[in-house]
Amino acid sequence: MITLLTDFGLTDQYVGVMKGVIATIAATVPVVDITHEVPAFSINQAAFLLDQSWRYFPKGTIHVAIVDPGVGSERRPLLIEAEGHYFIGPDNGLLSFALLTDKPKTRVLNEPKYWLPAPSSTFHGRDIFAPVAAHLAAGVRPAKLGKLIADPMRSTGLLPIRTSRRTYSGTVLHVDRFGNLITNFRITEFTTLRNRPFTFVAGMNEVELFSSTYANCPPEQLCLIAGSSGYYELSILNGSAAQKTGLVPGSPVELTVS
Amino acid sequence: MITLLTDFGLTDQYVGVMKGVIATIAATVPVVDITHEVPAFSINQAAFLLDQSWRYFPKGTIHVAIVDPGVGSERRPLLIEAEGHYFIGPDNGLLSFALLTDKPKTRVLNEPKYWLPAPSSTFHGRDIFAPVAAHLAAGVRPAKLGKLIADPMRSTGLLPIRTSRRTYSGTVLHVDRFGNLITNFRITEFTTLRNRPFTFVAGMNEVELFSSTYANCPPEQLCLIAGSSGYYELSILNGSAAQKTGLVPGSPVELTVS
Amino acid sequence: MITLLTDFGLTDQYVGVMKGVIATIAATVPVVDITHEVPAFSINQAAFLLDQSWRYFPKGTIHVAIVDPGVGSERRPLLIEAEGHYFIGPDNGLLSFALLTDKPKTRVLNEPKYWLPAPSSTFHGRDIFAPVAAHLAAGVRPAKLGKLIADPMRSTGLLPIRTSRRTYSGTVLHVDRFGNLITNFRITEFTTLRNRPFTFVAGMNEVELFSSTYANCPPEQLCLIAGSSGYYELSILNGSAAQKTGLVPGSPVELTVS
Repeated sequence: MITLLTDFGLTDQYVGVMKGVIATIAATVPVVDITHEVPAFSINQAAFLLDQSWRYFPKGTIHVAIVDPGVGSERRPLLIEAEGHYFIGPDNGLLSFALLTDKPKTRVLNEPKYWLPAPSSTFHGRDIFAPVAAHLAAGVRPAKLGKLIADPMRSTGLLPIRTSRRTYSGTVLHVDRFGNLITNFRITEFTTLRNRPFTFVAGMNEVELFSSTYANCPPEQLCLIAGSSGYYELSILNGSAAQKTGLVPGSPVELTVS
Repeated sequence: MITLLTDFGLTDQYVGVMKGVIATIAATVPVVDITHEVPAFSINQAAFLLDQSWRYFPKGTIHVAIVDPGVGSERRPLLIEAEGHYFIGPDNGLLSFALLTDKPKTRVLNEPKYWLPAPSSTFHGRDIFAPVAAHLAAGVRPAKLGKLIADPMRSTGLLPIRTSRRTYSGTVLHVDRFGNLITNFRITEFTTLRNRPFTFVAGMNEVELFSSTYANCPPEQLCLIAGSSGYYELSILNGSAAQKTGLVPGSPVELTVS
Repeated sequence: MITLLTDFGLTDQYVGVMKGVIATIAATVPVVDITHEVPAFSINQAAFLLDQSWRYFPKGTIHVAIVDPGVGSERRPLLIEAEGHYFIGPDNGLLSFALLTDKPKTRVLNEPKYWLPAPSSTFHGRDIFAPVAAHLAAGVRPAKLGKLIADPMRSTGLLPIRTSRRTYSGTVLHVDRFGNLITNFRITEFTTLRNRPFTFVAGMNEVELFSSTYANCPPEQLCLIAGSSGYYELSILNGSAAQKTGLVPGSPVELTVS
């Protein structure tokens, strides 16, 4: 099985073309879209969405992720093996979360015989990433596709920073379709918020309410939710916390615990 | 075969994750998207779109529909068997049309062994609905998934109301991509409109023209069309009836027959 | 394998319903979306997107393309066989590029036994095109589906016109998600632009820079790129050339070579 996550959108032919290339090489492999609506060039948001997704797929799944402002430049195309999954994409930090797993193996894709002939300098999704993923799905061994490297690029700044004894500076990782603000505060690392007072500063708003479900948050109030993503979210009942606060992906947030 | 209809949108990872969960449990079952762009929390519109779709799929298809503002609260997760199809979703009226079929059987999904472990309170699509659908597709019998109930929730107000001898008050069920206004007047119940004078009031507009096709409607004029949905639609040649009238899903319309 | 390219959008149930119809007739045939976000009624843009896509699919693929303002009128439904691929859609110029191949065979779909019963006048995608594609995928021979015709409609004005010894008048075929302006100047026909001076007039802008990749275009400057589409594109680093120039699909552009 192959998954696709890109910023190509669904108005162009790009995603369909990649599926055509895959079907030509590996006729029967199922292809699943994660999303193609990552904001253009938003590498960190794509990294978050990929990290949210891959564990829910069967072992052996090949995850192709492409947000690639440097396409055609010297940036390398990569294949990472991690926890029984495969990750294919550009070497620009997009695959950072796969590199945080136990003993990942990273290869640079340097075997043009597994690419389309005469690859363009602008659409490596079609010409390099899709054909390599399809050959891998069809049984070609990773070692044939490229040689091991030790220095893949990693995004920094994905975790909150402690700024004083009780205060942490964090960020909005993602705004979902309902306007929920997904922060980079992990539920498993900040375990007291459910039971003890806290203050969450988000733009001009101070949030001090915790709610176990969206539906239990009082009307018109911002609540902190232990989201299904594994991160804390800011949410508002039947409304958009993003609109209420004006925050966007990358906006700073601040947590003070008691 | 499993179909998915949600208000999750395609910019997040939610739909892809559900497909990963399904593939992990039932590797080879095909999954088809109906739409994921239902306006957030629009239960009635989703009910309409589901009703428009399911009959075109083969018997045995499992239809998963999720528009679920009450996720995590006491609302029940349901499985309905109707006319050889299966319907899975929250008990909030979304599955009303399936309940209008002949002898539907409704179960509450109360067997956590067919869910993901430790379900979140915010993403039952991933944690309950997708795994139950996959287990059903993989051959688990409905009776194993939950016990029969007799009181599923039904939406009201989906049908026009007669307000005088010749006048009916109705509503816009849906606006399609082309701006056609799909009303809740069924073609099979209002059979004279094709042949006899009528007046359809839509906002500030009175429509008295019937056209058998979009292309035959005179330029700049609103026409009533016997739409492919089984309902009458208001349409304008190469333009948007929604823009022309300002109507949206839920807007009232009024029909006077002769 | 069947591909779908329409202007139906993804907010309605139309595309899902077509897949249901296909699955009912040909249960196991894979269906791939090219795009459903062609601007409503934009036949030429859809023709371009189809031409960009079909060669990347395996021989034998059935390409269903529907942008169909004349649905329900006298316009004919077509099946074209070309270079081992099949093309199904309305006779309105949408399939023009398939007609430019070597010895295409064109049939009018005039055998209602391969349609859904009682086809509507507004949704031939569901009632005619999808079932015919599915029957073809299931093994019905093309000759059974309709009789040969010699006069399918062709779009004109898809190629640049020479207006003086060194000047050509062209057009924008498509604006992609990143705002790149894809012109109708083919790379293989204008081979000197990479090496010799040129002037490209796009709205109020004169473009004289050629860049081999998006990443190598200097900041804030419009560059001409030899795009992966086989056509020259106007592009701007990490920005939108469409926004910069105000051009849209159909806008004129002018090239002067040296």
